[in-house]
Amino acid sequence: MDKFSPYTDLAVEAAEALGIKEKDSRGVEVSTHESENASLTVVKITDKEGERCTGKPMGTYITIESPYMRENTPDVHREIKKLFAESLSKLCRLEKDGSVLVAGLGNRYVTPDSLGPKVINGIMVTRHIKDSLPEEIRDNVRPVSAVSPGVMGLTGIESSEIIKGIAERTRPSLIIAIDALAARKASRINSTVQMSDTGVAPGAGVGNKRSVLNKETMGIPVIAVGVPTVVDAATLVNDSLDCILDSMMEASDKGTDFYRTLKELAGEDKYAVISNSLDPYTENMFVTPKEVDAVVDTLADIISGGINMALQPEIDTENVNEYK
Amino acid sequence: MDKFSPYTDLAVEAAEALGIKEKDSRGVEVSTHESENASLTVVKITDKEGERCTGKPMGTYITIESPYMRENTPDVHREIKKLFAESLSKLCRLEKDGSVLVAGLGNRYVTPDSLGPKVINGIMVTRHIKDSLPEEIRDNVRPVSAVSPGVMGLTGIESSEIIKGIAERTRPSLIIAIDALAARKASRINSTVQMSDTGVAPGAGVGNKRSVLNKETMGIPVIAVGVPTVVDAATLVNDSLDCILDSMMEASDKGTDFYRTLKELAGEDKYAVISNSLDPYTENMFVTPKEVDAVVDTLADIISGGINMALQPEIDTENVNEYK
Amino acid sequence: MDKFSPYTDLAVEAAEALGIKEKDSRGVEVSTHESENASLTVVKITDKEGERCTGKPMGTYITIESPYMRENTPDVHREIKKLFAESLSKLCRLEKDGSVLVAGLGNRYVTPDSLGPKVINGIMVTRHIKDSLPEEIRDNVRPVSAVSPGVMGLTGIESSEIIKGIAERTRPSLIIAIDALAARKASRINSTVQMSDTGVAPGAGVGNKRSVLNKETMGIPVIAVGVPTVVDAATLVNDSLDCILDSMMEASDKGTDFYRTLKELAGEDKYAVISNSLDPYTENMFVTPKEVDAVVDTLADIISGGINMALQPEIDTENVNEYK
Amino acid sequence: MDKFSPYTDLAVEAAEALGIKEKDSRGVEVSTHESENASLTVVKITDKEGERCTGKPMGTYITIESPYMRENTPDVHREIKKLFAESLSKLCRLEKDGSVLVAGLGNRYVTPDSLGPKVINGIMVTRHIKDSLPEEIRDNVRPVSAVSPGVMGLTGIESSEIIKGIAERTRPSLIIAIDALAARKASRINSTVQMSDTGVAPGAGVGNKRSVLNKETMGIPVIAVGVPTVVDAATLVNDSLDCILDSMMEASDKGTDFYRTLKELAGEDKYAVISNSLDPYTENMFVTPKEVDAVVDTLADIISGGINMALQPEIDTENVNEYK
Repeated sequence: MDKFSPYTDLAVEAAEALGIKEKDSRGVEVSTHESENASLTVVKITDKEGERCTGKPMGTYITIESPYMRENTPDVHREIKKLFAESLSKLCRLEKDGSVLVAGLGNRYVTPDSLGPKVINGIMVTRHIKDSLPEEIRDNVRPVSAVSPGVMGLTGIESSEIIKGIAERTRPSLIIAIDALAARKASRINSTVQMSDTGVAPGAGVGNKRSVLNKETMGIPVIAVGVPTVVDAATLVNDSLDCILDSMMEASDKGTDFYRTLKELAGEDKYAVISNSLDPYTENMFVTPKEVDAVVDTLADIISGGINMALQPEIDTENVNEYK
Repeated sequence: MDKFSPYTDLAVEAAEALGIKEKDSRGVEVSTHESENASLTVVKITDKEGERCTGKPMGTYITIESPYMRENTPDVHREIKKLFAESLSKLCRLEKDGSVLVAGLGNRYVTPDSLGPKVINGIMVTRHIKDSLPEEIRDNVRPVSAVSPGVMGLTGIESSEIIKGIAERTRPSLIIAIDALAARKASRINSTVQMSDTGVAPGAGVGNKRSVLNKETMGIPVIAVGVPTVVDAATLVNDSLDCILDSMMEASDKGTDFYRTLKELAGEDKYAVISNSLDPYTENMFVTPKEVDAVVDTLADIISGGINMALQPEIDTENVNEYK
Repeated sequence: MDKFSPYTDLAVEAAEALGIKEKDSRGVEVSTHESENASLTVVKITDKEGERCTGKPMGTYITIESPYMRENTPDVHREIKKLFAESLSKLCRLEKDGSVLVAGLGNRYVTPDSLGPKVINGIMVTRHIKDSLPEEIRDNVRPVSAVSPGVMGLTGIESSEIIKGIAERTRPSLIIAIDALAARKASRINSTVQMSDTGVAPGAGVGNKRSVLNKETMGIPVIAVGVPTVVDAATLVNDSLDCILDSMMEASDKGTDFYRTLKELAGEDKYAVISNSLDPYTENMFVTPKEVDAVVDTLADIISGGINMALQPEIDTENVNEYK
Repeated sequence: MDKFSPYTDLAVEAAEALGIKEKDSRGVEVSTHESENASLTVVKITDKEGERCTGKPMGTYITIESPYMRENTPDVHREIKKLFAESLSKLCRLEKDGSVLVAGLGNRYVTPDSLGPKVINGIMVTRHIKDSLPEEIRDNVRPVSAVSPGVMGLTGIESSEIIKGIAERTRPSLIIAIDALAARKASRINSTVQMSDTGVAPGAGVGNKRSVLNKETMGIPVIAVGVPTVVDAATLVNDSLDCILDSMMEASDKGTDFYRTLKELAGEDKYAVISNSLDPYTENMFVTPKEVDAVVDTLADIISGGINMALQPEIDTENVNEYK
């Protein structure tokens, strides 16, 4: 990783920043599949060098992008749910009767961070009723439970501690952790889903979570699912500044030295310079679209619908009521 | 307990139904203290006979009643918070450095059942910051954490299992469990706080919880705090019917035999008769005041404010920001 | 109307209470059509006698009933939306370019009364963009606007005054007023839609509105659309009591005189007796299902989806985004 | 106004950008009063030249700033409410029996734009009950009403049209319009209240409102009250860029020409350059603090409390319930 890398939670943006579009000697592989309404990109970080240059742990990252996610187009949303469910099934590699705990991370009271708790509301939970179901359907129902641990500022406890406590008592085979993310490009906000088999990395996401949820800490596999809902303010300034400098360099030859100074700086502590240039209060600020309050409900519906499909392949999860 | 007893979560109403106003041979003691804006009643269930006739577990139940709780009177609310904090401190009997986990039971998406989760929002949590506080104030801050486990219909897991999992990892000295309750008298709705050292009993409250949170199941003391926000529909009909029959008996001597039939019935299965008389769908119905959506916020503020005062006696909890 | 008639906003229940199932000499006509997932009933009040005995103003009332409305069955919901849209189109009898103001009555902060404001969120509004649309589609778009006036307790102004003020400035051809209603039978709660060409009657609904919205007061036709979300507490007791007395009369001959007394009373002031038997605070109470918070969102989606279909027959309103 | 002026709704920031700290020949007067917990600044735009250079209409702008507004300090909030009420009273210059319509502008479903609708919930409305009050207090109660018109994207109608329609029917003496604003400095977000006698200017605020609410359009005086809850993304980049360039100029003499180029540009279309440098989707983005969801409730409480005090000087508005 360069000394300065504007922050992103998306592996696809980390690869993009390195200019990697296919297989790369640096332990990063990228492949892309386009369909009419969505594109699907798989990024594999295959070794320590890949980890170093992308800043992401080794594993597989699948990203689905579609501008329709933030629009009122339920027919396209059904397509995206199916695509998402297929990819998630592959990542999860669950046995037929493996049980799952879905964890909705984030703060339900901060809109761009409320994705996780909102997804939880849409999850078809079955763990508590499986035994009371008629025998002929019981075997088709996977035991699923779902919790929102809340954020440490409101609970006084790390999310990971809460999830671990619950997992130790309920013994799921797998955890799926949902979280809101930060992206670099505004165009990806609210229109991208990333899922990975690496768990939730420290410091990631909107809420500055400090705890890690992965196979190592939880003792069972952890699949992370996230949607970027914000851009970091310093990243926004950085990218805007680069864009301005580039266009000015083209238009003029006057500023060459100055530009060079700035470029040199870039190798060192440009992020610090930019952060310092921001009002101290800005540090706690989101850049987020006006319509985030409405879109986050749609996104939660897509994610929870896709998870239900992936976890209960034998059930028409979109029209089932009796399990509620 | 009589064969039919209209449902109430309030020990004070159970004692009232038995006509007990002071010490009673049946293992129930009642004492009342009136102040200008509130009344405080202590009910002690002292033996097995007391448990049998009230249907409540042995222990101490303190009830504060004030019609001002559901009104816009912050000055009176401050008084009630102080009264509540004093009573709660006595029940908790905490060591100076004993840590506390506050558990907000109930369903945040069903207004009359959302008291618990709403109280959690107002709790001053300190467990995660105590070690980073300046030494001179650190000793004055009790470690407090707070969680809302959600309801089993949405999580697939019993609330008690979730709380136990979290308590096993975080090792508090005491649990305070907040819950919405059902009362018999409509006049007590949203204007009564009950706290007890007995924990949360099975089947209690608005949400038909089946799991028990008490010292036995949790391994540490559990203090229950609740506010009645609903009346059971069958209880409403029963009490209305009794009232009608009584007034008709006074006015007429015609129905004596019929009345007797009904009275005899009362000893057996009057509750079943009434339940059958209700539309089957009514079983899932609340009787709740129109203004419950607004009042539950006020109640949550009173409860969380009172808990903060009780747990952090050295801090002006009403004007502290830095611990958030 | 009998001296005591338990309260209902549904014409279909008023007819039911009179035992009317087809055409009736008393100025009431009823016809019913059953389909697989829903039933549709048309009640016509054709003269003053019909008004008197039903307590409802003259006009046409169309009721769609389906238990699926309160279940998670989007496929059936699409069917119901279409059925609703067809019926609404017939009632509205709009010219191709007639403009419509949709008014969402009720209190958004009281869940069972929040239907109207929630429907407004789903209405496709077009009045402000029609002129900027490409010419080829402009003619296919009806100008629609939508407002939630709020309730008098929060605004200090009658809803009807607010709507009239807005209508006078914006000159719609028709008003569609949405409101939460009270039903008599619990089984109809959250599973019934009533629409009528009579406007919104005084004293109707959940919120004790005192103002009338109809052709006479507004100067343009007013179509009322409502869903019952509550049962009146006194009505609940009354119906339960009737049911108990009937079953006891069958089982015994003892209470004959008493029963007669009660029957006689029924002709006079039984409602008053029951109201008096209730705790004074009960007067302000709803009987409403536990799941009302979740169901009201589904109902709002059905109603707004159906209105959009009825008002914009040339547009695929379920998948349109660009007009938002 | 310079060709480029980063956007702000605050007159105090417009004056600041011009370097005006006291009386100025350009038709702008500034005076500041500091108290322990808050500062109060009065900006008067006194002529056309003042309008031109600040971009704000002629009139008086009073700004109260206090970092405590966004903290949990109810005791300081009471002070701020009083200070706000005093200033507002002076601006309103109401006769004892003058009636007031409070209008909460903005979108309740977009958190940083929801201030107006949230303030409305806290306004003590009296217009509908004044006549039914006991004679001895009736004269002490000013008739107040309160509405949230909603935003054009959701209603299809300009807010100003809705307010005008309601005002024409209810005939208030004065309108107070509440709105969320955009500030230039992040440190002012959620900690500043501006009130003015100029009404609400076109294009102002978070929601790109296009309609004007002022004495000219409404026929009665319009007082505007607002709190900045967002920073414009392009403004953030601009100010960050200036800050970076300044610090680099100090550290080096290399970039002089380049800097000059940029400065020259500043006089022309720097804002356009910056806007172009942003991702197109960023145009619809807010820069807003993480805690905005929680803080906006506190701000609404301060504003509604202050308005109640200003409008009902004879009543202890903080502890009155009977008028609700």
